Amino acid sequence: AALQAAKRSREGGNIRRAEAIIEHAYALAPHHPDVLTEYGIFIETIRNNVVEAEGYYQKALKGDPMHQEALIRRAKTLPLVEEIDNNMLKSIRHKRELFLKIPRWNSGLKRAMRESYFQHIYHTVALEGNTFTLGQTRSVLESRLAVGGKSIMEHNEILGMDAALRYLNKTLAAVGDIKMEDILSIHKRVLGFVDPDSAGVIRRTQVFVGSFTPVAPEYVNSELLEFVEWLNDEETLRIDPVELAALAHYKLVFIHPFVDGNGRTARLLMNFILMQAGFPPVIIPVGERGRYYATLKDANDGDLRPFIRFIAQMTDDCLQSFILSS
Amino acid sequence: AALQAAKRSREGGNIRRAEAIIEHAYALAPHHPDVLTEYGIFIETIRNNVVEAEGYYQKALKGDPMHQEALIRRAKTLPLVEEIDNNMLKSIRHKRELFLKIPRWNSGLKRAMRESYFQHIYHTVALEGNTFTLGQTRSVLESRLAVGGKSIMEHNEILGMDAALRYLNKTLAAVGDIKMEDILSIHKRVLGFVDPDSAGVIRRTQVFVGSFTPVAPEYVNSELLEFVEWLNDEETLRIDPVELAALAHYKLVFIHPFVDGNGRTARLLMNFILMQAGFPPVIIPVGERGRYYATLKDANDGDLRPFIRFIAQMTDDCLQSFILSS
Ligand SMILES: Nc1ncnc2c1ncn2[C@@H]1O[C@H](COP(=O)(O)OP(=O)(O)OP(=O)(O)O)[C@@H](O)[C@H]1O
Ligand SMILES: Nc1ncnc2c1ncn2[C@@H]1O[C@H](COP(=O)(O)OP(=O)(O)OP(=O)(O)O)[C@@H](O)[C@H]1O
Ligand SMILES: [Mg+2]
Ligand SMILES: [Mg+2]
Repeated sequence: AALQAAKRSREGGNIRRAEAIIEHAYALAPHHPDVLTEYGIFIETIRNNVVEAEGYYQKALKGDPMHQEALIRRAKTLPLVEEIDNNMLKSIRHKRELFLKIPRWNSGLKRAMRESYFQHIYHTVALEGNTFTLGQTRSVLESRLAVGGKSIMEHNEILGMDAALRYLNKTLAAVGDIKMEDILSIHKRVLGFVDPDSAGVIRRTQVFVGSFTPVAPEYVNSELLEFVEWLNDEETLRIDPVELAALAHYKLVFIHPFVDGNGRTARLLMNFILMQAGFPPVIIPVGERGRYYATLKDANDGDLRPFIRFIAQMTDDCLQSFILSS
Repeated sequence: AALQAAKRSREGGNIRRAEAIIEHAYALAPHHPDVLTEYGIFIETIRNNVVEAEGYYQKALKGDPMHQEALIRRAKTLPLVEEIDNNMLKSIRHKRELFLKIPRWNSGLKRAMRESYFQHIYHTVALEGNTFTLGQTRSVLESRLAVGGKSIMEHNEILGMDAALRYLNKTLAAVGDIKMEDILSIHKRVLGFVDPDSAGVIRRTQVFVGSFTPVAPEYVNSELLEFVEWLNDEETLRIDPVELAALAHYKLVFIHPFVDGNGRTARLLMNFILMQAGFPPVIIPVGERGRYYATLKDANDGDLRPFIRFIAQMTDDCLQSFILSS
């Protein structure tokens, strides 16, 4: 009945009322196919957001694969969404060309790259709860001297990211030839100074990430091997690099091979893939933590595209700022 | 000629002159058997230090095993020295009994033991060059917060000692059942936060300790195995525990199995042996660094007793201060 009212309000042009009703219904029954479909239609027709709308149709169809209206709507919107997604990736590849054309000795670019190194470390440890400011992070990295009153382990998280990034830049094999040991080696650096005992060591216990429960410890090894096989597969290497980087990130946190430091290791692997494809390393700003976690949750629920779009947008932002800096 | 003059001055009662001449001769020819013997006689008869004098006779005999005067002097002094050394160990064992009789809940003792934990860590990292004061060391251990302006790695050296001591107290097997892995595990904790890559890892390069050159890397593994075998041998376990602890320390730094952290690991192993024998852990104060290094050098030159005496005296000092605290 509420849905009928929402539909009538929407069709009658009373948008405020339609919005209030459908938001309410969605809050009450977030998995109901009818609710999801009506919410999608609202987002598609009133907010003009086809991409988001299509996500709701897809969710509705997960609950009821024969849902008539959702089927029709999805058939109409999916090709549009695919085009939008492809255009986004295309536009990012275009920006990469602009980025790669900036001469390496351009002083603006050099300054921006150095700056981005500190920002990268700052944001990735801040995501994890580290309380250092960007300025303190830079000072620790430049001087190796401690900041009074901060915990020693927060310092060590920063040193660990620094060690891991140096390792990536100098040691790691090319994409297409990444071994399981390489992933353990990244993790060994990330956590080395913080927890020498579990650094580089696959977990032997169950872990939990909010409402998401990764595989039981006895499967981690084989899942990781399968992941690495996928990573080096010829077909995988044909995937657009931004999409591939996002997929690799997701697959790694999905397995969650370590007791701690999975996010940082996954972000490093993602950046490694991006850098080898000519992109700058992408920063996930601590302010985007909400979207980062929400899109990972979407992926748990079966739709990987929101996370890929999120990473694509962060890559776009990074490219843009490097291009502007030069 | 100079020696004759020294001898004449000594026998004639002109001590100042005798001292000046013999010190000069010793500075010029520190390995000459005649000089060493005359120096020994000077120390024995004028300074009344039989123990030190006997060391010079022994050194003289190393250069010339048939040196008449040295042979005679040594035959006379050696039994005295052995008695003095044995009495010292006996007196220490007696103090251990007094120490063990102090009730564990004695508040003075409890305070002293807690204080000694911080002092232990302070001195052992100070020996290595760490610039933290005792107060700063305590603050880092109690709060885990950094001291502004100090290097992060100096903090990590302190945390490493703390981790290693906890490991010793909780995990390690009894003396008589120490394995090579146990020694590597101690070292893993000592250097874990400072250099995760080489922590717990046997060196693969040549190292140098002042003028002393430990064995080539390819022999370290077998030397360590032999050391552990000696450590667990029934006969070894019959040695006086203070002497045994000192021997174990020396043998470990003689092998010098690691690139860095050998001294700290050896001091921990020594204290482990002492603690299992009912002694408190012994602190080598940073102020005693000179004697510590000098007696290790004597050991390199073939006489282990000065180092054992040094460790015995440090043990005695520790026992004394615990007994006084209660
Ligand atoms: N629903 C989810 N499904 C899968 N992975 C998730 C989910 N939510 C968060 N994650 C990932 O798990 C990471 C947190 O795991 P963990 O604590 O092991 O990593 P970390 O590196 O210590 O922390 P952080 O990533 O916050 O810096 C997040 O960074 C994110 O990448
Ligand atoms: N002549 C010597 N022969 C054998 N060992 C020695 C000699 N001189 C010093 N040593 C030992 O070598 C140690 C120094 O080696 P290393 O630097 O590996 O240890 P560390 O733990 O890092 O330093 P430290 O012991 O100064 O704290 C000294 O602590 C001492 O125990
Ligand atoms: Mg974490
Ligand atoms: Mg050293």
